Amino acid sequence: MSAHKDLVERFYSVIPAGGIGSRLWPLSRADAPKFLHDLSGSGQSLLRDTWDRLVPLAGEQRIMVVTGRAHRAAVERQLPALADANVVLESEPRESTAAIGLAAAILNRREPGTIIGSFAADHVIGHPEQFRDVVREAMITADAGYITTIGIMPTEPSIGFGYIHAGKPLGVAGAPGAMFVDSFVEKPDLKTAERYVKTGTYLWNAGMFIARADVMLEQIGRSKPELLAGLMELAEAWDTPRRGVVVDHIWPELEKIAIDYTVAEPSAEEGKLAVVPGTFSWDDVGDFASIAKLHSGGRKSELAILGKNARILSDSSSGVVVSNSNRVISLIGVEDIVVVDTPDALLVTTSAHAQRVKAVVDALRLSGSGDVL
Amino acid sequence: MSAHKDLVERFYSVIPAGGIGSRLWPLSRADAPKFLHDLSGSGQSLLRDTWDRLVPLAGEQRIMVVTGRAHRAAVERQLPALADANVVLESEPRESTAAIGLAAAILNRREPGTIIGSFAADHVIGHPEQFRDVVREAMITADAGYITTIGIMPTEPSIGFGYIHAGKPLGVAGAPGAMFVDSFVEKPDLKTAERYVKTGTYLWNAGMFIARADVMLEQIGRSKPELLAGLMELAEAWDTPRRGVVVDHIWPELEKIAIDYTVAEPSAEEGKLAVVPGTFSWDDVGDFASIAKLHSGGRKSELAILGKNARILSDSSSGVVVSNSNRVISLIGVEDIVVVDTPDALLVTTSAHAQRVKAVVDALRLSGSGDVL
Repeated sequence: MSAHKDLVERFYSVIPAGGIGSRLWPLSRADAPKFLHDLSGSGQSLLRDTWDRLVPLAGEQRIMVVTGRAHRAAVERQLPALADANVVLESEPRESTAAIGLAAAILNRREPGTIIGSFAADHVIGHPEQFRDVVREAMITADAGYITTIGIMPTEPSIGFGYIHAGKPLGVAGAPGAMFVDSFVEKPDLKTAERYVKTGTYLWNAGMFIARADVMLEQIGRSKPELLAGLMELAEAWDTPRRGVVVDHIWPELEKIAIDYTVAEPSAEEGKLAVVPGTFSWDDVGDFASIAKLHSGGRKSELAILGKNARILSDSSSGVVVSNSNRVISLIGVEDIVVVDTPDALLVTTSAHAQRVKAVVDALRLSGSGDVL
Repeated sequence: MSAHKDLVERFYSVIPAGGIGSRLWPLSRADAPKFLHDLSGSGQSLLRDTWDRLVPLAGEQRIMVVTGRAHRAAVERQLPALADANVVLESEPRESTAAIGLAAAILNRREPGTIIGSFAADHVIGHPEQFRDVVREAMITADAGYITTIGIMPTEPSIGFGYIHAGKPLGVAGAPGAMFVDSFVEKPDLKTAERYVKTGTYLWNAGMFIARADVMLEQIGRSKPELLAGLMELAEAWDTPRRGVVVDHIWPELEKIAIDYTVAEPSAEEGKLAVVPGTFSWDDVGDFASIAKLHSGGRKSELAILGKNARILSDSSSGVVVSNSNRVISLIGVEDIVVVDTPDALLVTTSAHAQRVKAVVDALRLSGSGDVL
């Protein structure tokens, strides 16, 4: 237990808060990204939910947020206890390797031996105590030198998530659940997903990574040496007056690449990636179908209503309605519907077509309606 | 032809512009009733369409509009050529017998022998020249003492309209198409409607009445003597300084009853009602399903778009979208949908449920959301 306590004292949470969440347009926007919305029904933003879930691990002083310059004010409003030194601002989005890698490089410079855990700002997680237990188990495997991810035990054959294929037990003391990761697999078709769930060795990929900062950086360097060099240069200047100049110079040149390709997949191939299974409930709230499901408890006949000031009159309707204006919304005889009402844009679709929202956003951009994106 | 010319000189059109059109909520409102909207796609209001259709009959000086006090300014904006003497304002709605009866009483007092034709302000009619030919034929039967209605030759077994069952030919010279009306029948079920259309003797009831003003008043008097007495008292005071006092005194006490029950049905029973069939296209635009049909030419796969500033992005969707705000509206994979978007209220339903909109309006009134009605 004392070793465990020591680990937690070396632990730092990193919250990359970057993605807009295009599949949740018109609720999610460039200036109001997904992580700023209450999609869990908790009464506060997903970002704040994430913060509250992480605070009990190592305290408010050990949570770093990586976000866009444009979102600084909104993030600080959501997280008044966030320390200035823990705000990492991106001048422009450069994908997850740069975001998480920069946090790792800064923290490793400040405190060599830091174990970081990276957790998306815009996922919904239930049973937070279970979540933290799993993270603590992952710290132990991370300290043993493994990059560790958390895989969610599937509750159904979802075709909306990628899967982690778990292999042999890792055999690290204090982390009885940890296994090697055999491979990652993309979102499967239903038949494949059903097979995955039956085997019991396929877990949902929730995109969480727990690792020693130096191990994480080494892995980035093996995949992308130039990217690592840029990150190290940034970290060196970060806590000095040169930060601004160096950021302006280096950041826009960093390669845009997801951490899946620089860290997760290569380290799995090299037998250096561990997974700890989690049985807490988890959802990436990827589209409105997922929101509908989340809020109706899976009962298809219900109408989920999101929005503090919603004025909804529903007659024989089901699905989800998101009210982000104060207009009266009347639904009559529409089933499995998705209605998202905002002051300047309205979306009407069905759960079955919820994934196509992203294509609409692309079409709006091309058609000169970027004002509502 | 000279007799015909004489008739037209004695003709006066009356446009009752009273109904809100609750089935077209949230487009139609207490302060923006159906007749003020462009539902035909003509680029102007239904009221103005109606005016333009009637002007060639007896000229701009011989069209009277009966409307609510609240709509006076809007009506005058739509119809700048409307003479002051031809504006009849209701202090409160008292149904069609009072509205048309008052017009008849005023006109009969001003010009005994006037033939009036009453035409709703909010119907859509194609082939206006054919329409006027039918009205001219109806003037002849009206002058012969018959209250005359115009029945529309059905183009399909509609269950949305009432029907007129036509009987024997009337045998009035100059009106070869005119027949006695046997009876009126309410909106039928589909099977009955199909039978009606096959017989060729059932016509759609378009609620148009052409009659000598004195004959119309007599008929009202036989059905409702007190109502007639009130109308006569109003008409006597109308063109005098006493109008205001008498209106305040009499109008609120008049019985609220549709002209169908005081004039159409009783006169049919007494063998005094004639019908002239019309083959022009007609629709009462009773609900959004009818608007969808009207604008898609009946092609179910199309999406009809109404609204001058509509910004619609549709992907595999059909039905009708009415845009009365300037918001971007995106529809993805919704079929046969009805979306009506206004600044303070939104309706989402399907054509199949379009008739249920009225019930929603009632529910909103009861639930304290009268601000959006």
